[in-house]
Amino acid sequence: MGRVTERRKVIRIRDGAVSTRPDTLVAEEPLEIRLNGRPLAITMRTPGDDFALAAGFLVSEGVLGTAAELRNIVYCAGATADGSNTYNVVDVQTAPDVAVPDITLERNVYTSSSCGLCGKASLDAVRTTARWPVADTPPVRVGTELLASLPDRLRAAQRVFDRTGGLHAAALFAEDGELLDVREDVGRHNAVDKLVGRALQSDGLPLSRAILLVSGRASFELAQKAVMAGVPVLAAVSAPSSLAVDLAQETGLTLVGFLRGSSMNVYAGEDRIALRTAAAPG
Amino acid sequence: MGRVTERRKVIRIRDGAVSTRPDTLVAEEPLEIRLNGRPLAITMRTPGDDFALAAGFLVSEGVLGTAAELRNIVYCAGATADGSNTYNVVDVQTAPDVAVPDITLERNVYTSSSCGLCGKASLDAVRTTARWPVADTPPVRVGTELLASLPDRLRAAQRVFDRTGGLHAAALFAEDGELLDVREDVGRHNAVDKLVGRALQSDGLPLSRAILLVSGRASFELAQKAVMAGVPVLAAVSAPSSLAVDLAQETGLTLVGFLRGSSMNVYAGEDRIALRTAAAPG
Repeated sequence: MGRVTERRKVIRIRDGAVSTRPDTLVAEEPLEIRLNGRPLAITMRTPGDDFALAAGFLVSEGVLGTAAELRNIVYCAGATADGSNTYNVVDVQTAPDVAVPDITLERNVYTSSSCGLCGKASLDAVRTTARWPVADTPPVRVGTELLASLPDRLRAAQRVFDRTGGLHAAALFAEDGELLDVREDVGRHNAVDKLVGRALQSDGLPLSRAILLVSGRASFELAQKAVMAGVPVLAAVSAPSSLAVDLAQETGLTLVGFLRGSSMNVYAGEDRIALRTAAAPG
Repeated sequence: MGRVTERRKVIRIRDGAVSTRPDTLVAEEPLEIRLNGRPLAITMRTPGDDFALAAGFLVSEGVLGTAAELRNIVYCAGATADGSNTYNVVDVQTAPDVAVPDITLERNVYTSSSCGLCGKASLDAVRTTARWPVADTPPVRVGTELLASLPDRLRAAQRVFDRTGGLHAAALFAEDGELLDVREDVGRHNAVDKLVGRALQSDGLPLSRAILLVSGRASFELAQKAVMAGVPVLAAVSAPSSLAVDLAQETGLTLVGFLRGSSMNVYAGEDRIALRTAAAPG
């Protein structure tokens, strides 16, 4: 359990020259998440921080919001012939007073939505399940220079990426740029769930003063996870999707994309970005 | 329907200089896939090639293998107040003699597996549902120079990426390097499903002479899709995961990673890679 990397033999070809050596790969294993004993979801993930991953997943689903709502998380013994534990099945047990919604495939189908299945239905679903509005008082305000410094600091904090090249990373920063936490996973959504789950476990939700940085693109799913955790600023190294921008604009999330060097694009919530005013000419 | 990109206002910051302009973003919308009228899955995808996406998804799930097994694919009218079609729900209707497995969340949990939930169970599940072995006779044989040329040709063929930076791409090449098809999507698995679905629609499965190239990492899921479509060679621009390598080794799939410039790593199935022998010294 918990191995973040594994070794495999690889044949390296460099300009026609061939060599064989062991290579370090990012580990990938399935994780089944159960809610009060009932199978809920399977995700392919990098082992480690499994309890945080499960907790964060349930924050994203609107089930959990406070540490008190979480009674316990345990590894389930696997259905192995010898009764051993594969450490790939976790059961999240909620406190007695937690309303557990009927999270099934059908729920996610949004069949009751007034507009059929469309982007607006997806936005509505986030709004109706969100625990907190994006409500930072006073508003978080971030300078562009601070934002520009974050990707390098994420890369410096990544422990595994340089060895495998196969991991997505996500990090939480304070408004002053302090690195609060960083997680890595073969799945980008898992990295964010692990961050959010760790925040829940220390009863740190909503993350209303935090900046969430992701190493890749900003999809709707990642914007949804930011909103569900109460994060006011989501920054991505690469491009956002149209629906991620729509969700950010609708919920008040600040969404920054293409954060590279001293360049960035602000797609929503620009009030939180402190723009340097150009010096008046001579 | 079918818009691959959408325009949104963006605030661009370049070295402190601020400008506002419209930006082209990759479109993202949910797609519900129904199987004979029953909701099966929802994926966030870039609209377009939706029928191919649904068909390819069902190839990956082991439901479809030939064009004859596919009776029809239709857009379902959405549950809109005005009865209009959101073009985000497709129903795949199979031929009468097609055995439709009970594809539910529980099925994917692999609870009946002999080793609990683990990587080996995932490998076993692919083996038991695969229609075809990876069986190219005579074996496909690809030179490293041909492989090295593929990423540039993929980029040249990508229609949308340069405009949005937000798309994953996947392409099929013939053994001689001819580009057979290329698809793009906000989700990398969708891009591969679209390729495979188009092949199914023209009754071109198994893809036993094809090279599948993906623009990013090679996860277990992508290796699984290659195997389920009978593809003998999977090449990725970035890193594979441990479980993708395990699956490739077990099924005989050739797996190439870090395909960049004239460099690449071969993780499995090296028999299909024609290595240049170094010239004997003087």
